[in-house]
Amino acid sequence: MTSATLSYQFQPVGLVHSCFKEKFAIPRQPALAPAARGHIELLPPYDSAEALQGLEGVSHLWLTFIFHQAMPKPNELRLKVRPPRLGGNKKVGVFSTRSTHRPNPIGLSVVKLDRIEGSILYISGIDLLDQTPVLDIKPYIPYSDAIHQAENPMAPESPQPIMVTFLDSALQQANDHQQRLKQPIVALIEQTLAQDPKPAYQTPDPQRIYGVKIWDLEVKWQYPCADQIQVISVSRL
Amino acid sequence: MTSATLSYQFQPVGLVHSCFKEKFAIPRQPALAPAARGHIELLPPYDSAEALQGLEGVSHLWLTFIFHQAMPKPNELRLKVRPPRLGGNKKVGVFSTRSTHRPNPIGLSVVKLDRIEGSILYISGIDLLDQTPVLDIKPYIPYSDAIHQAENPMAPESPQPIMVTFLDSALQQANDHQQRLKQPIVALIEQTLAQDPKPAYQTPDPQRIYGVKIWDLEVKWQYPCADQIQVISVSRL
Repeated sequence: MTSATLSYQFQPVGLVHSCFKEKFAIPRQPALAPAARGHIELLPPYDSAEALQGLEGVSHLWLTFIFHQAMPKPNELRLKVRPPRLGGNKKVGVFSTRSTHRPNPIGLSVVKLDRIEGSILYISGIDLLDQTPVLDIKPYIPYSDAIHQAENPMAPESPQPIMVTFLDSALQQANDHQQRLKQPIVALIEQTLAQDPKPAYQTPDPQRIYGVKIWDLEVKWQYPCADQIQVISVSRL
Repeated sequence: MTSATLSYQFQPVGLVHSCFKEKFAIPRQPALAPAARGHIELLPPYDSAEALQGLEGVSHLWLTFIFHQAMPKPNELRLKVRPPRLGGNKKVGVFSTRSTHRPNPIGLSVVKLDRIEGSILYISGIDLLDQTPVLDIKPYIPYSDAIHQAENPMAPESPQPIMVTFLDSALQQANDHQQRLKQPIVALIEQTLAQDPKPAYQTPDPQRIYGVKIWDLEVKWQYPCADQIQVISVSRL
């Protein structure tokens, strides 16, 4: 049998509305940015509170979703990828990584379930792009999912965060938008940039300005030295 | 937007060869039966050791797979299900359970990776049916996946196992097949039946004989009392 013999078709049950409006700078795993919030809108015919009944008291969810901005090209065969974790310049087998570029562009992410309103699930600690199609939602089951003795030499611990500072004016802007949006913008910027979004193999030019879209904001930063990020402005798009 | 607006098509990257030859009696979560073994055969064009390079030392894998014996019927809308965990007679929302009957019949399971030979992954602690199509294989990442503080009131701990005994003759048969198959048959039967495969709401008739197919064996048992299983024969199919 070959892969082409069997084929399965899926339609999303929901859509993610996320603080992350572009792929760049999204934390590489969930939980690295607890201030990263969003919600899942269930799509008809699944947009019913009934489908969520029983989730009361469940703290975390597994989302199976589509990497909708990393769809493989037809006939593209990618057996090895360059994960950012290894600096972005070393190739390993695709099934040994969580890379977005995979035979079936299916993502897997655990998120915190903050609350449910009707058929809307409010979630945080997310590493999901805005408009991500959700294929399935399952409860986290601690006794089977939290494997304390598990080992993964390629990702033995969370990446070392780098220092993030704000220009005074940028911090003021972030605080103003925080009040307007009623979202933890300062913490979100700190937690997101502490993962150092630029490719690990890139030595930053102190003059170069980097930017990313978060909520309706454009966040700009520089690297005054290689291991430090300075946020220079936080402005509305 | 409705669910029907978007559609995605996937082809399996692999196929599970499992000790469990039918749905009945499969443990409801992985890791409940460490003696449950199998392997994943990668399908062409993914059947290359290259795609697995980097998995050395990784202890556990997430499998995303198809519940191929629980495909929804066209136009079937199932927002609530009766999970076995709740006795099989109480309905809850489909997204609050790991039920096999879901809008997209996608399963998620963490398994132990025992070893790799070429493009074959030997796995254990599985809750997978034989011939399960695998959509994706991802490494377990302890720092993000093992959430120690996670809570799930519906499944707060692993189900209480029930006592499993063997008739002397059945134990002898199991040991003989264990030697022939070079598989931990006695432990597998014990661990599988300790989950009590029959529906929780069913009061067992002490006369009734239950059976299940494991590897190339038919295992038969009775309930001498409600909270005890006695294996009465283990014979080749």
